[in-house]
Amino acid sequence: MSHSIDIRMKELGLILPSPSPPAANYTPYTIAGGLVFISGQVPLGTKGIEWRGKCGAEFTVEQGQQAARLCALNLLAQLREACDGDLSRVVRCLRIEGFVNATPDFKDHPAVINGASDLIADVFGEKGVHARFAVGCNSLPFDSTVEISGIFAILSASA
Amino acid sequence: MSHSIDIRMKELGLILPSPSPPAANYTPYTIAGGLVFISGQVPLGTKGIEWRGKCGAEFTVEQGQQAARLCALNLLAQLREACDGDLSRVVRCLRIEGFVNATPDFKDHPAVINGASDLIADVFGEKGVHARFAVGCNSLPFDSTVEISGIFAILSASA
Amino acid sequence: MSHSIDIRMKELGLILPSPSPPAANYTPYTIAGGLVFISGQVPLGTKGIEWRGKCGAEFTVEQGQQAARLCALNLLAQLREACDGDLSRVVRCLRIEGFVNATPDFKDHPAVINGASDLIADVFGEKGVHARFAVGCNSLPFDSTVEISGIFAILSASA
Repeated sequence: MSHSIDIRMKELGLILPSPSPPAANYTPYTIAGGLVFISGQVPLGTKGIEWRGKCGAEFTVEQGQQAARLCALNLLAQLREACDGDLSRVVRCLRIEGFVNATPDFKDHPAVINGASDLIADVFGEKGVHARFAVGCNSLPFDSTVEISGIFAILSASA
Repeated sequence: MSHSIDIRMKELGLILPSPSPPAANYTPYTIAGGLVFISGQVPLGTKGIEWRGKCGAEFTVEQGQQAARLCALNLLAQLREACDGDLSRVVRCLRIEGFVNATPDFKDHPAVINGASDLIADVFGEKGVHARFAVGCNSLPFDSTVEISGIFAILSASA
Repeated sequence: MSHSIDIRMKELGLILPSPSPPAANYTPYTIAGGLVFISGQVPLGTKGIEWRGKCGAEFTVEQGQQAARLCALNLLAQLREACDGDLSRVVRCLRIEGFVNATPDFKDHPAVINGASDLIADVFGEKGVHARFAVGCNSLPFDSTVEISGIFAILSASA
């Protein structure tokens, strides 16, 4: 019962990546008072960062969505660690913060970040419906196409 | 007594817009442990987005302030929904996050976001004095001139 | 005992600046439920803002790190005020939000923000290890090279 989210992810054909170490002197997540803060995640796959470049130049909205989806998979991988392996402890995805590497005339940030929002809603159902902001950046770490951080509410580990 | 903020807004001549549905697959706000996270709001008026373009190019600081003020009205409209219609349940505006669509040489982001900060302080008095960040973006959703999200502390609904 | 962090800062040769008033109509920090939200801090020194310009153009990664470190000193100065002068009330640095004023081809935002992360870890030890995001902005207030905001968990003031 406690791993119902794992079953749901299996149904969706989702496999979370190994949580990646942070790119610098910080930690992938912190926890306080039932809140989890997940550090900004980039579109890191098994072969390194898979999406480098800007929406509106190298990449379309649809490609940006795929980059956002990969960021979200990394976000959930970190969140699972924060929950000691049990994502059914997640009470609510409170907020997703989406940063899109974009050209100055790009306008479709919400559609790009939907690549992450849709995944999270698919995995968690009502608990996955979140507040969010989506904004444009003229540059992101390692030329990543998208970066996504998040704040979640979780239950304490049961005894 | 419980709707003192509505009286204050009437004195200020403020009418909140109808809370707008989110632009994508997420929700306008989430609530956990007395915290409310309001999604990023753009300068949406009755005729659609009323401010499109960049501060430092199409728009002056003063025009940016008007765009920020309109974002803040939309923020308060969502917050009122989160409070079941009773803004007097707001304990504190904890943080406002201000994103200004700007040219690379623009420097007056704090003045622009004051358009939102002043409104919130006018409405809530001491409870409206908030922490904030104000930064520049090379692009924002739908070419909006400003986007503003926020975190508030509220009381639970009384029985 | 209660001022152990002050002793640690003296060992590190760190002197916090006077907390600066906000650049606009808001407050340097808010507190609710054990969380402190610190407003965005710019690289303000005794002679005003000491770093103006973009990483990738006027400044190298190493110079950006110095700017980030100065932002972090200002962040800690505000945090000390929030703790009524006693930084040993800090339970955890939950998240650092780093904004780097950068050219469109800049890629080393994590290294720049390390200038802040390293300082905070030095001062607080394990309690200073934080989640974070680091992103690029095409412009920042007053042409600041870096802006950093943060969220901390603190203990209530003891009686």
